[in-house]
Amino acid sequence: MKKVTAFAPATVANVSCGFDILGFAIDDLGDKVTVELKEAVGLTVARIEGDGGKLPLEADKNTCTVAIQAMLDALGTQKGMEISLEKGLPLGSGMGSSAASAAAALVAANELLGKPFEKNDLVPFAMEAERMACGAAHADNVAPSILGGFVLIRDYDHLDMVKLPVPKGLYCTLVHPHLELKTADSRSVLRQQISLKEATVQSGNIAGLIAGLYQSDYGLISRSLKDVIAEPSRALLIPGFYELREAVMDLGALGSGISGSGPTIFILSQGRNTAIQAGEASKAVFEKIGLGVDIYVSEVNDRGAYVQTP
Amino acid sequence: MKKVTAFAPATVANVSCGFDILGFAIDDLGDKVTVELKEAVGLTVARIEGDGGKLPLEADKNTCTVAIQAMLDALGTQKGMEISLEKGLPLGSGMGSSAASAAAALVAANELLGKPFEKNDLVPFAMEAERMACGAAHADNVAPSILGGFVLIRDYDHLDMVKLPVPKGLYCTLVHPHLELKTADSRSVLRQQISLKEATVQSGNIAGLIAGLYQSDYGLISRSLKDVIAEPSRALLIPGFYELREAVMDLGALGSGISGSGPTIFILSQGRNTAIQAGEASKAVFEKIGLGVDIYVSEVNDRGAYVQTP
Repeated sequence: MKKVTAFAPATVANVSCGFDILGFAIDDLGDKVTVELKEAVGLTVARIEGDGGKLPLEADKNTCTVAIQAMLDALGTQKGMEISLEKGLPLGSGMGSSAASAAAALVAANELLGKPFEKNDLVPFAMEAERMACGAAHADNVAPSILGGFVLIRDYDHLDMVKLPVPKGLYCTLVHPHLELKTADSRSVLRQQISLKEATVQSGNIAGLIAGLYQSDYGLISRSLKDVIAEPSRALLIPGFYELREAVMDLGALGSGISGSGPTIFILSQGRNTAIQAGEASKAVFEKIGLGVDIYVSEVNDRGAYVQTP
Repeated sequence: MKKVTAFAPATVANVSCGFDILGFAIDDLGDKVTVELKEAVGLTVARIEGDGGKLPLEADKNTCTVAIQAMLDALGTQKGMEISLEKGLPLGSGMGSSAASAAAALVAANELLGKPFEKNDLVPFAMEAERMACGAAHADNVAPSILGGFVLIRDYDHLDMVKLPVPKGLYCTLVHPHLELKTADSRSVLRQQISLKEATVQSGNIAGLIAGLYQSDYGLISRSLKDVIAEPSRALLIPGFYELREAVMDLGALGSGISGSGPTIFILSQGRNTAIQAGEASKAVFEKIGLGVDIYVSEVNDRGAYVQTP
């Protein structure tokens, strides 16, 4: 085997009350990476499609190659590999674009090398790519993109991940309004001090959300999908955020929130029909504002990244 | 049936990372309340044993009668009832003493009235007793005392309780040092503002603890039993707190923390042997300091308050 293609899904991080500690994976929408073994040692990016020419081809600046290099370093080996990346995800949208590329690259390269690593072990390598791409080694996109489902990052200092169950029939609608929102701006509006009361409310909600996922209790999931810490500041950067919430809650969605650091909004629903209706209602909200929007409807993906060609 | 006796267990609230939102119940240790129907309308406290004469006999100041009155008010009825309270719990120790009395009184009175209420429905009445006794209608002691097991209070504004699973073989050691710690003092040392980073760490830990309980994952429970919000301030009021932790962690306990607002310390262990050894090690720590101490070892109680005489 000299060539492997893998797919890794888009992800939603900062799941409302799960700010900085929780993410989940989407089905279908994501990036494809093909890794081909070469004679000459060294990693190269041969081509990137679907990025509008925005992503770097330099091996030390591309998340695919940075992630694979971290993996090779861990193995204490050098290899020749040529990477081709097919972006299925918009850049800088808050859907875990850089993470999906790194995840797909790792799963493909791991397969090519005869699977020296379990999926769990790939996460730290992808985090190195996140560190390069956004300055911080976040795991809340790369972990669900690799592992699938909901992944809790209990602790970053000693990477402690917990894969959580996904209730049957849980759907996500992603609403990507055509506006640019820099992660740095989205980060800078966060309050660095919060009240004890707010921290307690947030704790109650993340605890309720985790219990709701284990019990497949949609009512509890819905009541728990509230963020009193990041959302009140960040929602101000996204026009239509609260109008969208009102519209989708009225038609029975479980909750909505900012995906990653935005501007994409995620909506969780029980069942595909509600998720589709939520997408239509969201589109109407943004059309009224005069903003274009892309809508994706998908079941929450429980398998994560996978090899497409054996 | 004119007379019913019920037992309600001691409880641990503020379970480390579960500050203000989580509590659990202990076996055996607790209060007994006998409620007897009388002809003359009105609630009276006939006698209290085991309180050293400290608890009030006035019906509007005793948590048993205040809780029952709230229940009768909800039923829109008046009854004649005489209450006898047998305290099995030390007062002001942080083991949910006032909550256990109210819980036992409610379960006995509810039985006497032909069970007009489910156990869940009794919690708000016991919260009224807590409001009278400590100025705030906390539920993190009364809910586990009535329902048993671990109870999450997701939301106080619209009382939203979730009974969580109890892993088999989970034991608690309660260490009650003989020192007085006023709840008001314990409350006043809490910081009212905390950093975003601390709130995120606390969220990760409570999420991990909930997942650990569902998965009976003792390692995850242990790693999650950390409180970066209340404990750093409150532990300063309890001499020997960190020495005790070091001693019990060395011998394999899962974690330790302040029970309620202290001074009692709780230790969670997998299996009865470790729980007993943790108690002995704790005793040694306090003997060195020159403080007397009571030790209780008990499985986590999953049944809550119950009727003793049908």
